Amino acid sequence: MKSAVIVGVGPENGLGGALCKRAAAEGYFVYVVGRTADRLTAVSQAIESTGGRAKAIVSDVTQENDVVSLFDQVMAQSDGVDAPDFVVYNVGNNRRIDFHDMSLADFETFMQTGPIGAFLVGREVARRLVPLGRGTLIFTGASASLRGKPGFGHFSASKAAVRMISQSMAREYGPKGLHVAHVLVDGGIDGERLRTLNPDAANQRGEDGLLRPAAIADAYWHIHTQHRSAWTQELDLRPFKEQF
Amino acid sequence: MKSAVIVGVGPENGLGGALCKRAAAEGYFVYVVGRTADRLTAVSQAIESTGGRAKAIVSDVTQENDVVSLFDQVMAQSDGVDAPDFVVYNVGNNRRIDFHDMSLADFETFMQTGPIGAFLVGREVARRLVPLGRGTLIFTGASASLRGKPGFGHFSASKAAVRMISQSMAREYGPKGLHVAHVLVDGGIDGERLRTLNPDAANQRGEDGLLRPAAIADAYWHIHTQHRSAWTQELDLRPFKEQF
Amino acid sequence: MKSAVIVGVGPENGLGGALCKRAAAEGYFVYVVGRTADRLTAVSQAIESTGGRAKAIVSDVTQENDVVSLFDQVMAQSDGVDAPDFVVYNVGNNRRIDFHDMSLADFETFMQTGPIGAFLVGREVARRLVPLGRGTLIFTGASASLRGKPGFGHFSASKAAVRMISQSMAREYGPKGLHVAHVLVDGGIDGERLRTLNPDAANQRGEDGLLRPAAIADAYWHIHTQHRSAWTQELDLRPFKEQF
Amino acid sequence: MKSAVIVGVGPENGLGGALCKRAAAEGYFVYVVGRTADRLTAVSQAIESTGGRAKAIVSDVTQENDVVSLFDQVMAQSDGVDAPDFVVYNVGNNRRIDFHDMSLADFETFMQTGPIGAFLVGREVARRLVPLGRGTLIFTGASASLRGKPGFGHFSASKAAVRMISQSMAREYGPKGLHVAHVLVDGGIDGERLRTLNPDAANQRGEDGLLRPAAIADAYWHIHTQHRSAWTQELDLRPFKEQF
Repeated sequence: MKSAVIVGVGPENGLGGALCKRAAAEGYFVYVVGRTADRLTAVSQAIESTGGRAKAIVSDVTQENDVVSLFDQVMAQSDGVDAPDFVVYNVGNNRRIDFHDMSLADFETFMQTGPIGAFLVGREVARRLVPLGRGTLIFTGASASLRGKPGFGHFSASKAAVRMISQSMAREYGPKGLHVAHVLVDGGIDGERLRTLNPDAANQRGEDGLLRPAAIADAYWHIHTQHRSAWTQELDLRPFKEQF
Repeated sequence: MKSAVIVGVGPENGLGGALCKRAAAEGYFVYVVGRTADRLTAVSQAIESTGGRAKAIVSDVTQENDVVSLFDQVMAQSDGVDAPDFVVYNVGNNRRIDFHDMSLADFETFMQTGPIGAFLVGREVARRLVPLGRGTLIFTGASASLRGKPGFGHFSASKAAVRMISQSMAREYGPKGLHVAHVLVDGGIDGERLRTLNPDAANQRGEDGLLRPAAIADAYWHIHTQHRSAWTQELDLRPFKEQF
Repeated sequence: MKSAVIVGVGPENGLGGALCKRAAAEGYFVYVVGRTADRLTAVSQAIESTGGRAKAIVSDVTQENDVVSLFDQVMAQSDGVDAPDFVVYNVGNNRRIDFHDMSLADFETFMQTGPIGAFLVGREVARRLVPLGRGTLIFTGASASLRGKPGFGHFSASKAAVRMISQSMAREYGPKGLHVAHVLVDGGIDGERLRTLNPDAANQRGEDGLLRPAAIADAYWHIHTQHRSAWTQELDLRPFKEQF
Repeated sequence: MKSAVIVGVGPENGLGGALCKRAAAEGYFVYVVGRTADRLTAVSQAIESTGGRAKAIVSDVTQENDVVSLFDQVMAQSDGVDAPDFVVYNVGNNRRIDFHDMSLADFETFMQTGPIGAFLVGREVARRLVPLGRGTLIFTGASASLRGKPGFGHFSASKAAVRMISQSMAREYGPKGLHVAHVLVDGGIDGERLRTLNPDAANQRGEDGLLRPAAIADAYWHIHTQHRSAWTQELDLRPFKEQF
């Protein structure tokens, strides 16, 4: 049985949850990875309730030990589950912080969930999957990966760094069979997080004005299933009505 | 019956041919459009021989009359065939020309098959499909769309201009329901053209070192089928072993 | 006496005029090139009235004969004037045109003043100056060189194509001693053109909210005088208060 | 007397040293900032020996206290020295590290000298100079700021993050009078560091094949002296013979 590792799973109806469900629907065993046990369990139970198989793993991917331990587990290949061939780094949050008011601690948090976590997960994937000569690793990016705006310098720095890790890995490990890609998600994602932070967002945007998590997951899965003669390294996704 | 218009069809085993066959396999009526009647007929017959429906239309898309006439035909909706909702602008050739030796005629040819043709086709698509509030238009790009190299200034100028037409159209017509996208094809395409020009290319690159047309067509079709809450405006495609 | 060729000179107080005056102030003989004799004469007389030397040359740079003839003249080196070593391609206009309403003639005009003229001037500069192993060629770009917006697809296609010509030439001829650069002018230029089209623009933007032509010319001249161990290929310029 | 703060000064003949000397030659009091006292003293003494004024300040800009203390000092305005109006963040080193072999400590070092230090210095500059409504802050970038390559993912992540800090600050503080810019240095710099690491580099590249620090400093100074109606946010610099 093939397996997937989705790192950065929050609310069940968010992007992480959608990626887990999509992999399960494709017949994959899913490692549901994040920091909050309750949320992970909700996703793994949802998968199991529809006949799939999943395992919740609490892990703080900004901690080296946690990441090494995570990959030790997922590589163990017990119980008919193969080493993963679909891994997503979907960690990260966003909020506006005025640059001159920002604390070092706030800035560092974005470096931890961005480049530090991406490096740790990326390195373990390289160490474990490159010898197998196969697999897909996708990083979730944003329009801020390409552009710095007032109030979002920290987020943009974090995301641009992750993008460069993705690009460097793609150039180095693609020829060795590991497909590394980066998805620029531009716009609000229709999930619990946004609906809590900004309850009017969905109404303001109108029908299909927010990205549906399952629609984003479609694109990730398309990347995963591409023939190796035509791999995508980067694509963008945004609602049809988004200004850009 | 839904329909597709593939503009810029050459050898049956090239990208244009693969796009036609993919649309046919998805149940679309296919307008096979290009300059060379024999080649178009070969593609339309191949489609019909497998139970699909297609029509070859000879058209020089650098000529305004031809493009208007082409869209008059495909919009006619006779015989149970709907107005098109999948259109690809796949026109263009490439060869090295030293800049200081280039004739104006050579340079102009690249402007004709690039921005002029893309403008004409793009404008007709906007005029005809935007009122319907649906449809997909994809332009074929290249790594040269982003970067100018010695010996390829003409090609790069042509491709960058097409990319800007694509981007402007996406920003203008996306919110009106027309999905406009641009695909950066980076690498050699495994077809008659390359095998004639450079017979050793496939061997030099090794297995899957050239882009398979059907694999490229997969990505175009994925774009076409994306939910409108998560549309791609641009993606790249290259062989896993391509240096970039 | 060194010489400069400024191609695309309009109103005396515009960018073309400022470039001419700057070159003259640096002791260069200035070829003042454009389509409207009166305007060229106004600039050349202004230069001569302050003790400089200049010559107005009426030339339509979208016509091959005109461009070849122009460079025949400027290379003639009579009267103590050397072959040029500072050439600027500053041709181009801008206006909004809705994409679906655009005539082919309108679109072609932008291709003529953009890539066609840039190719012709660029080719002649390559042919004439590369053998001398020195010289600077600068193309005037815009933010549209990088990005396509609704209503400006034609302008963006034109400008992006010019940028690729500039980049290809830089990569090919830089190592041979010709410095080719591209300047992204982002914002309104404070000159007769803008003050006629949009008389309120200066007031709306406030003090220094429009680019001063002489300030733009400073950057061009800086590029021209850079030591060849540290050449700029591209820089942007915008008013300090411009949103971008 | 105007003053400059050059952060990241190493060997006297490197870029940091050249920036210090240029500012001194323009009549500025120069704060020479770096981690190694001997090197800073060498630069400040060289400035004083030619009649300029300078002060060496040992500071580790990856430490918040050091950065705050540094700006407390330079803002003190004693002895006829004004608050700084030219600040450069020139911190950072580079070396190849294979991604799968990289230690977390190595990766973190690049985050410290890149985004963390750039954030701390950038924030203090914003806090101190924006209220004055004037000043220039320039960050030193590299081609890796734009592109990730095998063996340089750490460097590229670090540099791309710094670039986004620069871009965000430019958009936020430009309209308030602080000129924030980013310089992409593409190629080897001709100084003690490179000549020690790779003694043959200069010979291999040939005459002017490495960037001269004084030539780079010219471009920084040009940015600093631009009229505010035409500010540069980013430019690239490379030797005329560099492949790119």
